[in-house]
Amino acid sequence: MEKDRLVELLNKMTIEEKIYQLVQLDASLYSEKAAITGPKAKLGISDEVIDNIGSVYNVYGAEKVRNIQEDYLKKSRHKIPLLFCADVIYGYKTILPIPLAFGCSWNPELVKEGFEMVAKETSAAGVHGVFSPMVDLARDPRWGRVMESTGEDAYLNSAYAKAEVEGFQGNLDNNHVASCVKHFAAYGAPEAGREYNTVDMSERKLRQDYLPSYKAAVDAGCKMVMTSFNTVDGIPSTGNKWLMRDVLREEWGFDGVTISDYAAIKELIDHGVAEDEDHAAKLGIEAGVDFDMKTPIYAKHLKGLVERNEVDMKLIDEAVLRILNLKNDLGLFEDPYRAVDAEIEKMIINSEENKKLSRSLAEESIVLLKNDNKVLPIDKNKKVALIGPYINERALTGMWAIATDPKLVTTLEEAMKNKIGENLACAHGSDIVDDYSFMGEFAAYFQNSVAKRDIEKDIEEAVRVAANADVIVVALGEHAFQSGEAASRTELTIDKIQIKLLEKLSGLNKPIICILFNGRPLVLDNVLDKVDGLIEAWFPGSEGALAVADILCGDVNPSGKLSMSFPINVGQIPVYYNEFKTGRPIVGSGHTGRFVSKYIDIDNEPKYPFGYGLSYTEFEYGDITLDSDILTTNGVIRATISVKNIGKVKGKETVQIYVQDLVGSVVRPVKELKGFKKVELEPNESIDVEFVINENDLKFFTKNMKLEAEKGKFKLFIGKNSRDVKEASFEYKV
Amino acid sequence: MEKDRLVELLNKMTIEEKIYQLVQLDASLYSEKAAITGPKAKLGISDEVIDNIGSVYNVYGAEKVRNIQEDYLKKSRHKIPLLFCADVIYGYKTILPIPLAFGCSWNPELVKEGFEMVAKETSAAGVHGVFSPMVDLARDPRWGRVMESTGEDAYLNSAYAKAEVEGFQGNLDNNHVASCVKHFAAYGAPEAGREYNTVDMSERKLRQDYLPSYKAAVDAGCKMVMTSFNTVDGIPSTGNKWLMRDVLREEWGFDGVTISDYAAIKELIDHGVAEDEDHAAKLGIEAGVDFDMKTPIYAKHLKGLVERNEVDMKLIDEAVLRILNLKNDLGLFEDPYRAVDAEIEKMIINSEENKKLSRSLAEESIVLLKNDNKVLPIDKNKKVALIGPYINERALTGMWAIATDPKLVTTLEEAMKNKIGENLACAHGSDIVDDYSFMGEFAAYFQNSVAKRDIEKDIEEAVRVAANADVIVVALGEHAFQSGEAASRTELTIDKIQIKLLEKLSGLNKPIICILFNGRPLVLDNVLDKVDGLIEAWFPGSEGALAVADILCGDVNPSGKLSMSFPINVGQIPVYYNEFKTGRPIVGSGHTGRFVSKYIDIDNEPKYPFGYGLSYTEFEYGDITLDSDILTTNGVIRATISVKNIGKVKGKETVQIYVQDLVGSVVRPVKELKGFKKVELEPNESIDVEFVINENDLKFFTKNMKLEAEKGKFKLFIGKNSRDVKEASFEYKV
Repeated sequence: MEKDRLVELLNKMTIEEKIYQLVQLDASLYSEKAAITGPKAKLGISDEVIDNIGSVYNVYGAEKVRNIQEDYLKKSRHKIPLLFCADVIYGYKTILPIPLAFGCSWNPELVKEGFEMVAKETSAAGVHGVFSPMVDLARDPRWGRVMESTGEDAYLNSAYAKAEVEGFQGNLDNNHVASCVKHFAAYGAPEAGREYNTVDMSERKLRQDYLPSYKAAVDAGCKMVMTSFNTVDGIPSTGNKWLMRDVLREEWGFDGVTISDYAAIKELIDHGVAEDEDHAAKLGIEAGVDFDMKTPIYAKHLKGLVERNEVDMKLIDEAVLRILNLKNDLGLFEDPYRAVDAEIEKMIINSEENKKLSRSLAEESIVLLKNDNKVLPIDKNKKVALIGPYINERALTGMWAIATDPKLVTTLEEAMKNKIGENLACAHGSDIVDDYSFMGEFAAYFQNSVAKRDIEKDIEEAVRVAANADVIVVALGEHAFQSGEAASRTELTIDKIQIKLLEKLSGLNKPIICILFNGRPLVLDNVLDKVDGLIEAWFPGSEGALAVADILCGDVNPSGKLSMSFPINVGQIPVYYNEFKTGRPIVGSGHTGRFVSKYIDIDNEPKYPFGYGLSYTEFEYGDITLDSDILTTNGVIRATISVKNIGKVKGKETVQIYVQDLVGSVVRPVKELKGFKKVELEPNESIDVEFVINENDLKFFTKNMKLEAEKGKFKLFIGKNSRDVKEASFEYKV
Repeated sequence: MEKDRLVELLNKMTIEEKIYQLVQLDASLYSEKAAITGPKAKLGISDEVIDNIGSVYNVYGAEKVRNIQEDYLKKSRHKIPLLFCADVIYGYKTILPIPLAFGCSWNPELVKEGFEMVAKETSAAGVHGVFSPMVDLARDPRWGRVMESTGEDAYLNSAYAKAEVEGFQGNLDNNHVASCVKHFAAYGAPEAGREYNTVDMSERKLRQDYLPSYKAAVDAGCKMVMTSFNTVDGIPSTGNKWLMRDVLREEWGFDGVTISDYAAIKELIDHGVAEDEDHAAKLGIEAGVDFDMKTPIYAKHLKGLVERNEVDMKLIDEAVLRILNLKNDLGLFEDPYRAVDAEIEKMIINSEENKKLSRSLAEESIVLLKNDNKVLPIDKNKKVALIGPYINERALTGMWAIATDPKLVTTLEEAMKNKIGENLACAHGSDIVDDYSFMGEFAAYFQNSVAKRDIEKDIEEAVRVAANADVIVVALGEHAFQSGEAASRTELTIDKIQIKLLEKLSGLNKPIICILFNGRPLVLDNVLDKVDGLIEAWFPGSEGALAVADILCGDVNPSGKLSMSFPINVGQIPVYYNEFKTGRPIVGSGHTGRFVSKYIDIDNEPKYPFGYGLSYTEFEYGDITLDSDILTTNGVIRATISVKNIGKVKGKETVQIYVQDLVGSVVRPVKELKGFKKVELEPNESIDVEFVINENDLKFFTKNMKLEAEKGKFKLFIGKNSRDVKEASFEYKV
């Protein structure tokens, strides 16, 4: 439809019709047959509202969507199609590794392909918009939603944000969907790592570290932005005009649709910034939040606010127009059924092609953390004992894969049986946890599905199985509901019943390889002291176990590198690579001994730093060559380093470049990632990896809060992770 | 001297003489006989500088000070006396409980008396200015310097700040000294609790929570302000013009002397905001830092900066004039030797009167945390086993009592022997720690002084002694160097060798009372499960063991209440009572079960909340009576509550009042302390405690960063701690 016609349409709408366009409600409003059922009574809204709302969420399936749309349009005066959105975060039926996992791939191109695949499945299932990507920068592993984040670094997160949006949206044809970046802003920094808790930081830190990934998504053309639950400078995002209008729309030029997170407009009341629903509606629309998700607050209160001249009708018109625009961009006015085709849906969803893609992303996401005495890969001719609660677990997709079916997931036992057949012996050994009460309302469901095991007997059997093997592979981890939304933990260790199993296995004095399935960086001291090899598999997606088996057996050489630091212990949190310089560094300051910036009981450095990950081969780095040690405005410096595979097998290596600004008008980080390249090398093969640095790479929010580069000296580091680097220097001259 | 004459004096000074006035150097520059010795060579400065510097620090003793001053004045052209400052934080020879301890007294009047006593001792020892009080708000017990803070609350800290400054300074006669409030600003919030680490917070949080205690000190007439080591909005305080000039001088009207913390001007280089010493000097003087402590950077670089027109001479003149003013206020121009009198010094220092004062402050600072089955107080007729590494420890004064002599300290064994004589049996049991390496350069010193014990044998002996007793008192704690400056810890438990001792004692199945000596809130789970009674003694000062003995035996009824929350575990940090409201509170939000602001493994509430402390008696609270439920501008509300001693012994109770602003333009805390009263009641005695609330109590930094009260509804809570309260409501009408 022509844009002008949208304005004409808007002008024909009554105030009620306009307001109802701003409402997005739960799919439970519609039964299977699209009849209106119970929930509306609870919401206290009339049929008129429900017949005219702008959007619903979490309805999937071509047939179901078609029925609801048909029914809706029959009743609609203006025939404005209903917008279907869904919590498809990193997969619809074919599930990719969780974002914290694929964050370790350092392969945004592959992530983009993965998200294109997800878009295709989702669109075929009738969905128009997805509440993804989640690009919240996260430095506190106590927070459960780190599993949805690509990690601790603004540069890397931004690269993924762009890839994810481009993957979802493409040219917005029927194979693609509208993407909604979230959670704007800084949801990833809740105090004490506690879910939904207060966020407080300086505007400088917000702009420097937390906003860039959202901006990258907006710059990539992201159609929607979702608010976050937290405060920004004391005001919840959902009622924060500075954030949602001044920054997002004015500074960044975002002209798409904004949406409250689940009930977030209503929560302005609990936050204590709104007196009642009426006030909450006013704050929401004034802040520029277009869609009211989950609640009927806009539906009930906006009209009165306009009539009492407390809200300018213009704000509502603008919001409605943005929503009509989105529907138009999706082609819904031309075809309200869009990609909906039950035949195609069947063909596309969980196709071999899609599964292959998910598997290859898992292969690149898995991180080898420890490999003492080259215990890995496993010799397929040896007898392998596969032990642990995760060997036949299908919950490998993490908490936010709510539309898929666990039956689609291959288990590790199945994957390994295919590989080494009779050489494999298996035993469960223990449950993941011995107490499911942390799961809240989900506990009952899981307790039915999980047999109550006799742990002592299970462990005994596991030890017997392991005693006959040459090598023990033990698959441990967090319960899928121990990370994800509302899964903040204060202890980051593996459950004690698993550690008990591991201790018993450790007593056999055989080589032990541990595979970890989990959704956050963990405290691993009581695992590391008992194992020779450690593979961080994360929640690797529906095909992930196959990738793990490939890596275990050496058919795939691991290449993942951590995108989030692993702390030594909880007391070290937050620990991340790009911390600021202090006045009393351990090395180099005039102070010695005690009076430097450190702890008295552990080191400052994390257990495993950002960018860290091993390979079955080894890469040797040369020294850095710069084509010039002076960078001028509009100029570039080319930094080259040779990387050689000096091991015996082919492997992929992610070469990372960091800079340090020696003197700034404000304190600068010790290192900042400014580029990376993933290369694949045959044994003995060598390659010159080149990075180009320009003025933009040196920019930061200077004393006067301007994004600019300051002249002066810089260090440049290139290496295999944020800790092990070669160094060079250059000067930036304005 | 008349103020005008100071300007005349300034005008007579050469630029060098002026600059050298801004220099404060280490006392090691002067030998016992006031000759100039080695260190100056290391500093690279000439005799001319040393003969003209404005101040020295950490020289004590009437005779020594007199000699140095005499020698100095002989060489001084203008006869401007040298200013003697010292790290006297909470005691010179007679040491008060550490600030985190007396923070629990809720008795600023008594603290004021204590600081008057300290001032008197210090002044008699020749010192003119003290680097105290430290008023940094602290919510992270990982940070070692929480021991120097009065706690987590801005209101309570401000009350103490005022008392401390008034106690030190009085009318600034010879019995008083100039006070230097520190560390300006927000030093108490280092990221990850790591000493000297970056501080980042919103300006709103800075103003609302962190600045008030410094402002209270300034408003109380504090003569000096010391910068902090940390950044404020990305810029180290010592080079932060906004903080040191705009806020401190312009907004607050501070016209006293500012001083860098130890070498902090030089550290601008390590922070990466200054290129070199020259640049650091420029940033320091421009920020308005008058004294350069510890380094010769001002001495070496300011002149060149003025000559090259990079620094306005006016800035230096102003700084010098402020220092001359301070010396004049102290009466040094009239009498450069001021209170220096070796005879009086001897009489005053550590007098019985002073010791008594320290002891009574300790009595009010000690907190009874647990008293199951009324195991406390001890029946003096019973056989008591006094066990543990702290029973004959004299390091009860905490890390920042550097001028005192441990020999002045009474031990717990000595104190208890006086009380119960032959009924007492003692055994050491274990060392405080088994590894002293955390102490850095102090380790060697302590390892010589501490005999290497045979722990197994010691524990065996302790168990034998305890087996014969009716009740076991075990004195455990942190090493004095495990808290204080540069003593950040990631694990907050008592050392494992002490826990081993406790476990063995626990096996005897006798009543166990634990006394804790420590400098921070600890994680106590593995202590609490083994003891019936727990007394938090902190580092209670030179007379503290006597106070502990009095409390143990019931001669003093404990009345301390925590000024800082005790976390359940490290993963809960920061946990404090006045957290902000979230959109998803556990109780009252529309969400149930999992999706509320909480952890999945522990509760949100700390183990012991702010304001918590038990007594040997019990206090019953009535309901709150308000004289009106409407507060108007310039009006007041009187809130009254009856408190009755329903136990069998006399006791003191601190009644606390909190408010909650139900709706604000920014999110407000769940509770904020707005007053407290400490009352003493005989058994069966009842009292009506009245609090007066006015508009000022409702003010906060509103959306537009103005300190103002907003109309609307408020809750008012009165109770025995921040958790156990009665509730009332009122409305504020503008």
